[in-house]
Amino acid sequence: MDGGKKALTLVRKLTLKAILERNLIAEGDRILAGVSGGKDSTVMAWVLSDLKQALKRNFTLEAIHISTDFCSCCQKGALKQNLAGWGLPFQDLPVPVMGRLKPGKTMNCYWCSTQRRTELIRYAVDHGFNKLALGHHLDDIIETFFMNLLQKGTLETMPARLDYRKYPLSLIRPLAYVEEAQIIACAGEKGILRSVCTCPFGLHSGRREMRARIKPLLGEGPGPKRRILRALSGGHWDYLDEGLTAK
Amino acid sequence: MDGGKKALTLVRKLTLKAILERNLIAEGDRILAGVSGGKDSTVMAWVLSDLKQALKRNFTLEAIHISTDFCSCCQKGALKQNLAGWGLPFQDLPVPVMGRLKPGKTMNCYWCSTQRRTELIRYAVDHGFNKLALGHHLDDIIETFFMNLLQKGTLETMPARLDYRKYPLSLIRPLAYVEEAQIIACAGEKGILRSVCTCPFGLHSGRREMRARIKPLLGEGPGPKRRILRALSGGHWDYLDEGLTAK
Repeated sequence: MDGGKKALTLVRKLTLKAILERNLIAEGDRILAGVSGGKDSTVMAWVLSDLKQALKRNFTLEAIHISTDFCSCCQKGALKQNLAGWGLPFQDLPVPVMGRLKPGKTMNCYWCSTQRRTELIRYAVDHGFNKLALGHHLDDIIETFFMNLLQKGTLETMPARLDYRKYPLSLIRPLAYVEEAQIIACAGEKGILRSVCTCPFGLHSGRREMRARIKPLLGEGPGPKRRILRALSGGHWDYLDEGLTAK
Repeated sequence: MDGGKKALTLVRKLTLKAILERNLIAEGDRILAGVSGGKDSTVMAWVLSDLKQALKRNFTLEAIHISTDFCSCCQKGALKQNLAGWGLPFQDLPVPVMGRLKPGKTMNCYWCSTQRRTELIRYAVDHGFNKLALGHHLDDIIETFFMNLLQKGTLETMPARLDYRKYPLSLIRPLAYVEEAQIIACAGEKGILRSVCTCPFGLHSGRREMRARIKPLLGEGPGPKRRILRALSGGHWDYLDEGLTAK
């Protein structure tokens, strides 16, 4: 089996913990997993398929990939092969992200992800899924928190679970407790290679810059990241606003 | 008057803004200002006394200093003279912080500030004050936020105003919008010199370390600090907890 594969065991354990603590998967769920072909979402697809037995819950799991109009070089063969090996049906959905840009507007990560998200939600609802699983991990969640805090001036991040009001759908992030380094190690142990090209716009993203800026703050080890996650999930947000009553 | 004294004008303007926006001072308030003798609380005492006219509100303002048992070297002459010049009655309250340490316990900033706070609250309530003003500034508020976030795993900071439930007292921080550098510049323009000795324990405080760690994150200029303050004061804390409902 996976004897000696430490990262793999750890990722499975942390994902199971998140699923149970955050109530991410229930009996009878129909889950659509968004897979870009990158390490994060591919590892998520694997671990969700693998946890079916451990969870002792019956749920449907299918994968969807969005192909954009600014990338025609992707070889999705390896991705399809991996997913098929794990028993996951696969759907490729073309979305002309560039083609939808209004005149004079330039491409950016926020716009692109909004377009993708909209299409994922539409597809999920139209096809009877009640959960949309995304491969965001602990580092993504923390980076998003700091981007919102420092650039937007808001206390926001990507929650492990978000129930939409407009749609009969919940967005879930099963890797919310897993650090990126653990996912990379897991992908290595599992022999998962990057099966898509690198986004031509991603190199200059604000996320990358924020990652470098928060690194000295977080220091070494998972402690500070876990404490931030706890703070964001705690529900105890006293002592923040002015005029609060205490003691 | 204070023509050409830019920092002084700015500190006064930001303090007035905080007082009005956060509803820190009302007609008839009896305000006790905690003054350590350091630049922050001394500048606060000055600006509060100076703003009486601009605010067009009648309020009583008195100053209190806590003398601890681990410092006997302080010359409070300059402090008393400054406060007298600004029309503020001054009270010196001895608190044996060291003497209260239980056997085997060592001195730390948290313990000391808790002891001081307790005595300040007691004195204020006993003497009929309804507001206790402390000299914490924007950098203090942001450092506290990050210390709680990274070390305690909570979303907490020192609010600009806190109404105690147990006591008929509100704690106010009139310098909540002012950066430390602005206070230093203001103290320079105003000719306010440090009038107490440096705390013998303060050099190794966690706060000092956190300050260095968040510096690269905040970068230059007041923008990120102001956005953090806005986030902490916003009252819009969606997208934080798991299971939240959105859109």
